[in-house]
Amino acid sequence: MRGGHMSLARTGEFGLISRVTARLSAGPACLLGPGDDAAIVAASDGRVVASTDVLVEGRHFRRDWSAAVDVGHRAAAANLADIVAMGAIPTALLVGLCAPPGLDVRWAEDLADGLAAEAAKVGASVVGGDMSASPTLTIAVTALGDLHGAAPVLRSGARAGDVVALAGRIGYAAAGYTVLSRGFRTPKLLVEAYRRPEVPYAAGPLAARSGATAMIDVSDGLLADLGHIATASRVGIDLRRDAFEVPPQMRDAAHALGADPYLWVLAGGDDHALAATFPEDTPLPEGWRAVGHVIEGSGVTVNGRAHKGASGWDHFG
Amino acid sequence: MRGGHMSLARTGEFGLISRVTARLSAGPACLLGPGDDAAIVAASDGRVVASTDVLVEGRHFRRDWSAAVDVGHRAAAANLADIVAMGAIPTALLVGLCAPPGLDVRWAEDLADGLAAEAAKVGASVVGGDMSASPTLTIAVTALGDLHGAAPVLRSGARAGDVVALAGRIGYAAAGYTVLSRGFRTPKLLVEAYRRPEVPYAAGPLAARSGATAMIDVSDGLLADLGHIATASRVGIDLRRDAFEVPPQMRDAAHALGADPYLWVLAGGDDHALAATFPEDTPLPEGWRAVGHVIEGSGVTVNGRAHKGASGWDHFG
Repeated sequence: MRGGHMSLARTGEFGLISRVTARLSAGPACLLGPGDDAAIVAASDGRVVASTDVLVEGRHFRRDWSAAVDVGHRAAAANLADIVAMGAIPTALLVGLCAPPGLDVRWAEDLADGLAAEAAKVGASVVGGDMSASPTLTIAVTALGDLHGAAPVLRSGARAGDVVALAGRIGYAAAGYTVLSRGFRTPKLLVEAYRRPEVPYAAGPLAARSGATAMIDVSDGLLADLGHIATASRVGIDLRRDAFEVPPQMRDAAHALGADPYLWVLAGGDDHALAATFPEDTPLPEGWRAVGHVIEGSGVTVNGRAHKGASGWDHFG
Repeated sequence: MRGGHMSLARTGEFGLISRVTARLSAGPACLLGPGDDAAIVAASDGRVVASTDVLVEGRHFRRDWSAAVDVGHRAAAANLADIVAMGAIPTALLVGLCAPPGLDVRWAEDLADGLAAEAAKVGASVVGGDMSASPTLTIAVTALGDLHGAAPVLRSGARAGDVVALAGRIGYAAAGYTVLSRGFRTPKLLVEAYRRPEVPYAAGPLAARSGATAMIDVSDGLLADLGHIATASRVGIDLRRDAFEVPPQMRDAAHALGADPYLWVLAGGDDHALAATFPEDTPLPEGWRAVGHVIEGSGVTVNGRAHKGASGWDHFG
């Protein structure tokens, strides 16, 4: 135990801000960090890439499932993944925290530690934020990034004949979520994958430099997110089912829980894998594996057929 | 009436996103708007200014006090003011919306209209965002801006002898808040000032070009925010009480409600006026008026004395 409970209400907004900012260190792109009206971040090629995600307690995280530091890692990862999915290098995070006044200050500090540690993996840092009391614990993260002169990789550039490729794990976080929701805490591999997604950050900019024609962060589930590429590019996508190996621990967990592991793999979000399309003669860069092809038409199929029951999440559903 | 009630739960996340993005138009700095993993915004001099604010229903706005379009104006204004207080020109907003599933889609659309209209006042636009269901209606706004090669105006540059100056109205929004909290809807001047602050956007970059040594957006109240400049600059600030004229409608409202109008003026936030310091021989630029001086020492005084009972807000208090 690290001292007694100290609530946000007792510390106050400014007290909390100074406690949290004292834990942050500036990354190389941070020209002015927390403490003024706004932060200033390098945008070396005259453009900045920016994305916002909100995480709401009970919907995107649970305090009894994840420690605050894990929630910080996850919140940062979700946003940083959006930046690398454009082919950019993340530079900075801004964080809005809405929290019940009774929340332990320690929780907010640990959250900041998780956000900062995840950002540091890619050389980025937390440069600013805001805090407010709220009945609902909510974390709003904005990530910024720098393309360093490269063209962004959009969702709309896939062409029939391209190879569809994947970087990073898929299905692990969804499996971990199911495990936790059934009241279990193991297998650790799956539960930890949910708590702290391992985003293949380097694979995004690498794909951009290797000529990827389209790219997306897999957050809604692979079929749903490839569907976004298919729609934006006006093409179809066909996946090879044998490209998706179910690891033993996931197979065992699925068996024990009576779940379909391919639903985790094909429709589960939250691993923040990256999916991209490459011209068929392009050697896939490190970390990428082929999982299918872009075809004429529309929609996403597996071995030529619609995959039943496998769609992504709708956050108001 | 514009058709019946359609809840967010019925429209779904993607339905709402497409309805909302259809209402947005791209400003000149928007290189890639909503619809991909991230937006891309011009940052012409290789730096981007960024600030985040969260607004929580019941704390920062009330749906029975403000129409959705007003909440949008206010949410945008609070953030855009932070950007101009650095001396930068706002370029873009990213908006995270957390809303109860039963919320009318129309409310979210009107909110987007207000955000977009306020951003358009400074040539900025809404370039991205995220949405989630939540029990607590919450709006997280990140604003980006461009210094166009100018040095940012920080809180830390005030020097003894500088003139303290103010741009924009102060006390109006706090007065409007008090009026609304007592159940009244008039005077309109004050209530509208609370609903849609009139931020002196042009005054920020103008102050920067005119040699302002420090600047801040007045969001916590003038005394509190000048206190931030005094602390960051290691100086004192003394205001002249006769520089703060209480307009007749504010005086009448204060009289009717038994309130002290100087408390609204000196300690009320939410008008998003700008306060800055200028070298004493600098002619004040258009829109700025002198209200006091920077002195050796610390803290903020009025006619040489501490103003009793007048501090800013603490958002966890």
